Amino acid sequence: MKLFDRKRITLGTCYYPEHWDRTLWEEDLDRMKEAGIETVRIAEFAWILMEPSEGCFDFSLFEDFLNLADSKGMNVIVGTPTATPPAWLTEKYPEVLNADIRGTLYRHGARRQYNYNSPKYRELCTRIVEKMAEAYAKHPSVVGWQIDNELNCELDEFYSESDTVAFREFLKKKYGTVEKLNKAWGAVVWSQCYTGWEEIFVPRYTIHGTVNPHQVLDYKRFVSDSVCRFAKLQSDILRKYVKPGDFITTNGMFNLDNNRLTEESLNVYTYDSYPNFAYCVEAYKAKDPMKDRKWSRHLAETRAVCQPFGIMEQQSGANGWNTRMMAPTPEPGQMTLWTLQSIAHGADFVSFFRWRTAPFGTEMYWHGILDYSGRDNARLAETKAIHQIVQKLDDAAGGIYQAQAAVVCDYDNTFDAQLDRWHEMVERQSGKALFEAFQQTHTPFDYLYLDHAELKDLERYKVLFYPHASIMNAERAAMLKAYVENGGKLVFGCRSGYKDMDGQCVMDLLPGHLRDLTGTDIPEYTLISPKFDGIVHAEWDGASIETAVFNDRLTPLEGGEVLARYTENYYAGEPALIRKKLGKGEAYYFGGAFTEKTAEVFFEKLGIREPYKKLFDLPEGVELAVRKKEDTEFFFVLNYQETEQTLQLHAAFHELITDQHVSGSCTLKPYGTMVLRLK
Amino acid sequence: MKLFDRKRITLGTCYYPEHWDRTLWEEDLDRMKEAGIETVRIAEFAWILMEPSEGCFDFSLFEDFLNLADSKGMNVIVGTPTATPPAWLTEKYPEVLNADIRGTLYRHGARRQYNYNSPKYRELCTRIVEKMAEAYAKHPSVVGWQIDNELNCELDEFYSESDTVAFREFLKKKYGTVEKLNKAWGAVVWSQCYTGWEEIFVPRYTIHGTVNPHQVLDYKRFVSDSVCRFAKLQSDILRKYVKPGDFITTNGMFNLDNNRLTEESLNVYTYDSYPNFAYCVEAYKAKDPMKDRKWSRHLAETRAVCQPFGIMEQQSGANGWNTRMMAPTPEPGQMTLWTLQSIAHGADFVSFFRWRTAPFGTEMYWHGILDYSGRDNARLAETKAIHQIVQKLDDAAGGIYQAQAAVVCDYDNTFDAQLDRWHEMVERQSGKALFEAFQQTHTPFDYLYLDHAELKDLERYKVLFYPHASIMNAERAAMLKAYVENGGKLVFGCRSGYKDMDGQCVMDLLPGHLRDLTGTDIPEYTLISPKFDGIVHAEWDGASIETAVFNDRLTPLEGGEVLARYTENYYAGEPALIRKKLGKGEAYYFGGAFTEKTAEVFFEKLGIREPYKKLFDLPEGVELAVRKKEDTEFFFVLNYQETEQTLQLHAAFHELITDQHVSGSCTLKPYGTMVLRLK
Amino acid sequence: MKLFDRKRITLGTCYYPEHWDRTLWEEDLDRMKEAGIETVRIAEFAWILMEPSEGCFDFSLFEDFLNLADSKGMNVIVGTPTATPPAWLTEKYPEVLNADIRGTLYRHGARRQYNYNSPKYRELCTRIVEKMAEAYAKHPSVVGWQIDNELNCELDEFYSESDTVAFREFLKKKYGTVEKLNKAWGAVVWSQCYTGWEEIFVPRYTIHGTVNPHQVLDYKRFVSDSVCRFAKLQSDILRKYVKPGDFITTNGMFNLDNNRLTEESLNVYTYDSYPNFAYCVEAYKAKDPMKDRKWSRHLAETRAVCQPFGIMEQQSGANGWNTRMMAPTPEPGQMTLWTLQSIAHGADFVSFFRWRTAPFGTEMYWHGILDYSGRDNARLAETKAIHQIVQKLDDAAGGIYQAQAAVVCDYDNTFDAQLDRWHEMVERQSGKALFEAFQQTHTPFDYLYLDHAELKDLERYKVLFYPHASIMNAERAAMLKAYVENGGKLVFGCRSGYKDMDGQCVMDLLPGHLRDLTGTDIPEYTLISPKFDGIVHAEWDGASIETAVFNDRLTPLEGGEVLARYTENYYAGEPALIRKKLGKGEAYYFGGAFTEKTAEVFFEKLGIREPYKKLFDLPEGVELAVRKKEDTEFFFVLNYQETEQTLQLHAAFHELITDQHVSGSCTLKPYGTMVLRLK
Repeated sequence: MKLFDRKRITLGTCYYPEHWDRTLWEEDLDRMKEAGIETVRIAEFAWILMEPSEGCFDFSLFEDFLNLADSKGMNVIVGTPTATPPAWLTEKYPEVLNADIRGTLYRHGARRQYNYNSPKYRELCTRIVEKMAEAYAKHPSVVGWQIDNELNCELDEFYSESDTVAFREFLKKKYGTVEKLNKAWGAVVWSQCYTGWEEIFVPRYTIHGTVNPHQVLDYKRFVSDSVCRFAKLQSDILRKYVKPGDFITTNGMFNLDNNRLTEESLNVYTYDSYPNFAYCVEAYKAKDPMKDRKWSRHLAETRAVCQPFGIMEQQSGANGWNTRMMAPTPEPGQMTLWTLQSIAHGADFVSFFRWRTAPFGTEMYWHGILDYSGRDNARLAETKAIHQIVQKLDDAAGGIYQAQAAVVCDYDNTFDAQLDRWHEMVERQSGKALFEAFQQTHTPFDYLYLDHAELKDLERYKVLFYPHASIMNAERAAMLKAYVENGGKLVFGCRSGYKDMDGQCVMDLLPGHLRDLTGTDIPEYTLISPKFDGIVHAEWDGASIETAVFNDRLTPLEGGEVLARYTENYYAGEPALIRKKLGKGEAYYFGGAFTEKTAEVFFEKLGIREPYKKLFDLPEGVELAVRKKEDTEFFFVLNYQETEQTLQLHAAFHELITDQHVSGSCTLKPYGTMVLRLK
Repeated sequence: MKLFDRKRITLGTCYYPEHWDRTLWEEDLDRMKEAGIETVRIAEFAWILMEPSEGCFDFSLFEDFLNLADSKGMNVIVGTPTATPPAWLTEKYPEVLNADIRGTLYRHGARRQYNYNSPKYRELCTRIVEKMAEAYAKHPSVVGWQIDNELNCELDEFYSESDTVAFREFLKKKYGTVEKLNKAWGAVVWSQCYTGWEEIFVPRYTIHGTVNPHQVLDYKRFVSDSVCRFAKLQSDILRKYVKPGDFITTNGMFNLDNNRLTEESLNVYTYDSYPNFAYCVEAYKAKDPMKDRKWSRHLAETRAVCQPFGIMEQQSGANGWNTRMMAPTPEPGQMTLWTLQSIAHGADFVSFFRWRTAPFGTEMYWHGILDYSGRDNARLAETKAIHQIVQKLDDAAGGIYQAQAAVVCDYDNTFDAQLDRWHEMVERQSGKALFEAFQQTHTPFDYLYLDHAELKDLERYKVLFYPHASIMNAERAAMLKAYVENGGKLVFGCRSGYKDMDGQCVMDLLPGHLRDLTGTDIPEYTLISPKFDGIVHAEWDGASIETAVFNDRLTPLEGGEVLARYTENYYAGEPALIRKKLGKGEAYYFGGAFTEKTAEVFFEKLGIREPYKKLFDLPEGVELAVRKKEDTEFFFVLNYQETEQTLQLHAAFHELITDQHVSGSCTLKPYGTMVLRLK
Repeated sequence: MKLFDRKRITLGTCYYPEHWDRTLWEEDLDRMKEAGIETVRIAEFAWILMEPSEGCFDFSLFEDFLNLADSKGMNVIVGTPTATPPAWLTEKYPEVLNADIRGTLYRHGARRQYNYNSPKYRELCTRIVEKMAEAYAKHPSVVGWQIDNELNCELDEFYSESDTVAFREFLKKKYGTVEKLNKAWGAVVWSQCYTGWEEIFVPRYTIHGTVNPHQVLDYKRFVSDSVCRFAKLQSDILRKYVKPGDFITTNGMFNLDNNRLTEESLNVYTYDSYPNFAYCVEAYKAKDPMKDRKWSRHLAETRAVCQPFGIMEQQSGANGWNTRMMAPTPEPGQMTLWTLQSIAHGADFVSFFRWRTAPFGTEMYWHGILDYSGRDNARLAETKAIHQIVQKLDDAAGGIYQAQAAVVCDYDNTFDAQLDRWHEMVERQSGKALFEAFQQTHTPFDYLYLDHAELKDLERYKVLFYPHASIMNAERAAMLKAYVENGGKLVFGCRSGYKDMDGQCVMDLLPGHLRDLTGTDIPEYTLISPKFDGIVHAEWDGASIETAVFNDRLTPLEGGEVLARYTENYYAGEPALIRKKLGKGEAYYFGGAFTEKTAEVFFEKLGIREPYKKLFDLPEGVELAVRKKEDTEFFFVLNYQETEQTLQLHAAFHELITDQHVSGSCTLKPYGTMVLRLK
């Protein structure tokens, strides 16, 4: 697959030929090539230029550009323009628009104002994609296609009439009868039972904004399903036209089942990475130790969908709409750092957003490599330096990220945690804490989507954390049990096993499907009283650990072994952590949400902390990531600090960027990166 | 009247037969009885089950349950289901829905989405209530009826078209002509005068959300009137069917004229008491000394409507919707404490919400006695222990709460303080301060609704505080004067007498109708400048007191005697407190809002502080409440602290719960209660 | 022109005859006269009284009042009532209403609910204004007319259908073709191009509330244009009827091109001055050194539109609607201080809001001179004292405010800074800092609207600050260059020259049109990272100065001289300030936004700081303002502090208020004012 041949790591950029006088095109392409850029993405917002009025098509502009690109030997990724319908379209067919929960339509003037389910929109999208594919797919410079732009970005809620019609179909297919739906939704509460499909809507405007939670869970699944169907509509067309070796992708990573999306419609997944968001005026948190390093979490999520992957939009300049997201220009070195962060986590293709900064429009402060004038500048120079670097990393291309531990997740729980604040509070706490603990202890980890996994996927890891497996079913519990029996270590946090697939609490003894596996009974539970400010302590082997947000008060069942007990609140002395040995492995039930400190204790006790300790001694502010290709491990050491960091290397390495031999004590400059290979 | 026979204090619970497999019913009833529960409330959200489609009725489910309950000797309270209309109803007749101020309808999916004034809704409610009454009223297990559920809960604002039509009728009846309405509303300002009834609406969407304040005052009265008419519609039907001795009630206490509601439509009032709201994540205030003790204020308000009363929903488990109100499980002992708090204030029947926790729906985290599994648990054990306690309190049943002081209020001022932030700021400050001062000094007090009172009601108290009698008329002033002349002590705070019944400021010298009574003139006044952070000091008999929020600058009229003077701001030296002796009593005009410290000084000076001082020496964190039956006083001493409290008893008592003799120093365990009777 | 004859300074008040029983009128007028009030404004909210039903007119009420006023020798200003259409009007013609961005109409009940562009409203306004003018314009007591009331107050955004129709006309006139509009709006971004005028709307409801920024810029110009056209509609009618010498004005100062409004439609501008807003509960900031003194900024803005001017509404009593803006009663002396603040800045006529406080309506707490009872009070006494004072200031009447420095502004940048947060952040910072520095150093300054100025207007000042001339064009740059060449000193801050007249960033080298003038190149720039908390330091001649919010990283071009360099961040050492000498003058480019400390350094270095230093030594908390008439300077020294302030006079002066000779050290009492003239 072009750009993903596992032989080279290459650079690209986003370019908008329609923004510029044609006289700039050639110069721009020449300067890109000089900077080491081999690929450009085009056309993803340009519907109006290709269909200036309904049914009249004009593909000449991008055809001219493709011809020029071809003459320069530049690869091109073509985007379908369905994220931004023209004004003529939405004025004539307002039913294609998305609406808010009150029913007010979102109008032309921003982007992503459409809904996925309008038959008319699907018809018009089908036509433009088909026509574009006819026009461009065979062009020699084309190497791939991007479907739409950032699906589910801006908004992931849809309340148009078309969505209600489609939601009913989705539900009919799932439930067959209204009676079954009423049962699944617990509609007997508050007289909510439906007597016909026409009484059922996507969530609507209600008092206190509260809607039946099981309905919302299905609605979130429906939105995800809508995106997947919308992408497949386009993918099915594109597949008829693309040249062999050309790929189909989409960009960004938003709230939907990205695994299904990828399986059904894509050849490769490309993420949009903007770590400078951490420095936006609205978002900056001085005390957050992670900041831009948090993007390693997003890259790990990307890797859980597709590996290796691409970065379709890699931050080069400052963020900023005219109304929000104001951020400083990245400091010298940060653009390089973030590019290498992407590569360290599994990217083989990195495309910078964007070549030139648009001097107009809402995103006029979202800077590209060049500023408004197009003059040579620091970011262009940094791009060239990055090109020098990535050329030295080709041996790592296609390498797989190495992790002994994974955090298990699934879309049912992900969606449930969005609608259920009890779930959300523990999920947010543990998700953040585990990530930070992994980072600060230099313990590489992966995410693993249980609902898209088989037993062998689990068995790649020594230890799995499934922090709040609230929704659980028998099949999943069985796979997890097999994992443990075969030697895995599996850790659950509080509120596991509480719910069934409808998001209803189970009427069984808790933790439901996980009782046998964990050897744990939960006779009582409580949110941690605000009196305690969210933390109740426990004692594990003589050391104090923190339990956060919520406490299950545990009792061991047969095979369950109490490892830790609460030391505070009225349940001091009761078990807080139970382990059950099963077959060759062990299952743990921990009665709280995790804090970063607690997570570190688990890493230590379960033997996964700092797996490369023998090779390195690294300061906290530095990330370690490892890609392995064939038998060679490539160690990426990334410094997120604005100060120099000192490392100890306990072996002799080859540093790829400087092409030098290094060992012993060595320093990493501010925002600097080393890529090491054992000699 | 059943459950309110003044001979026994009994327990109940809320139960939803429709939520559970019928196989659970019998076991549930048996376990309830074993726990000492004698009464269950049912059916209040079950419209869809009784009228599954328009005009088709099916009363079999609850009939079966009633038969079973009867066989077990269980009492049943039946709720009318009008709080939650079925989807078929609101889809067919959207005019029954409430709307927000923009006119957007609140849709099916939550509860209380209806409006009180839709003729169609009133017709459909009339029919379902009549049919239910026919079906169940004669059933031997039925002991009472609950109208709707928590009238005016969720929202107390209604902006549907039906409401506008009804509002016009309300206004026609009140004013007769548009000219009189224009006058009462001061509509001459900003060209607001109306020239026909059809130009008049409930408040609508305006710039800055501001609407004519006199219109809003009438609108608030109209909403209260709408609730009362809606309840009476149901009560009039039920009265035709209920067995002798069965009662009609409604539950909760929300923003409306509850006295009128009770007088017109109820036999007894039942409150819903959820003190654990104080520990909700969103509401918790570490520094608030009151927390759950604040519910004693709500219970005092309940008592001002009806005494003795019932608790239809008494908190047993954790609060929580899936979207908000997350709170911890009550700590061991709190369920008992809160039950006794209700009884101490005048409840003779306490019904726990709810037997089982629903595993589905918006309130899936609003825990009942049992959790999802239904296993025996700590709350069930505590319920049984509570039953042991209340059996020992039968002698106190029907006893009347004892207070020498009352806080005077009236619905005109209550509503005005909701629409007028100047009024609201003083009212909120003084209301909170007086309550806290009464609590912390162990000075029992009542509320007294002047607009539902006669002179003899006033004369039950030595001292009345009418903190901000902003709206005043000649009749009320005359009754207050008679109270003073007959020996009462009456205290007004700032802004008293400022307004007439339309909420217009009086063009008289201030304090208007209260000039003569208080011997006070107010030549100047001011909000306390934010420079002073809300407090200006004054001196009273050499001691410094606080005046809060707003200052009237006073001058004594004939008979007026200056007791305190401001010591700060540019009006230092001017009178801050004037007393006028009149007949056998005294009237006070205080130039500010009250703080807790200032209120305590008043209690001291007016001789009402700590009336049971000779009997007890109590720490601040403990509440004293007294119910008297015939000649026996029952002293409830309630410990809201999580720590043990020490009391000094200066007499010999019989403690009813332990059935022991106590005197001298004794300790009250965390969340513990003593019920004492003098030996 | 009556009231503005440059011979006397006179007092007035706002009066609402329609609020009061007619029996009060005569007494009120007599008491006004006794207090020194010569003029009343009437009728501006009284449409319903003059046109009680459509097409039926009744002018008798105000005619009676005018006759009485005439008999008392009282001047009257008549307001047109178009700010508050009657209910009959808006119910019959809802198309006259303004709407929010969702399209929801703002309804009757507040004020300013209309839109300027409805043909029906313009027709009905035309008729009522014409009829009023016929009825009242020749009346001998009438001296002037006020158009509408506070145009663009409450809301300056209009989203009705009438506005869209008018916006299209505005755009057609400006652009001629949709193609040109697409170009100006950068509509090629996000496929926003329009293919017909009917696709274009005023901003509508969009995702994230984001709308094309160039569209918003045109929209803001359009709203301003709408106001101006609406005022001109009325002014054109009034001009046909007014007596010679009578004036046309409007009141308040809101977000629109007030210079154009004044040029086109007014004879004189009158401001509404409410400095007590600084003490509103919602607005009070204990640490703000300016508070009520901030109104000197607004008065300077007023002066930039018209000089001398009037104050149509001068605060006398407390602010307050029933829902918001609660504030204390002004302290004794503040009413006098604020009146003299207005006069010091150029007012020759001051009219107090309002004679009596309305006891009803939304503004029932917006106090006038008298309170509800009408009794003699402190404010009436203070009014009389003010009258004594202003009689002594007649020599200053018509005097012109003296300033050596001005802050340059223009409506293009003003509007752009409202829609562009990058622009807004620097503009807000520098605007506040420059004002405070001018105030605290006793350096009088003016504002100057470049888009309404000629070179000679600029040349009245030694120094001009144009803090963030983001939008710039060749003509303006040329005028500025001429100013410098002729000897002026001109200072730009960061982000100058970034944009063209459409609000698009220029594709030139920065600072675009200002490169040559400033001798400055800007190769790189950045928002100051939140890490630095908004301030990066620089060094200028050995002293440390602050640069705020945003940094241009400068390089000198030919003629550019580096004066200061950054000392922090990764660009430490790079130029932060460049000066270019040109002809007789100097241009400065400063790479940041200004702080108050930095502004003071500029004043010092550019020789404009404290120009009257030789005459006075003044404490920081005191303002100095100078009005000059013929050759006499009147020095107003105003004490905003609640404490006595000590001044040093280095010359002998005549103090006009006390009619005494003063020199050397003297004290100014709390809130006191001196008006000095050199002997």
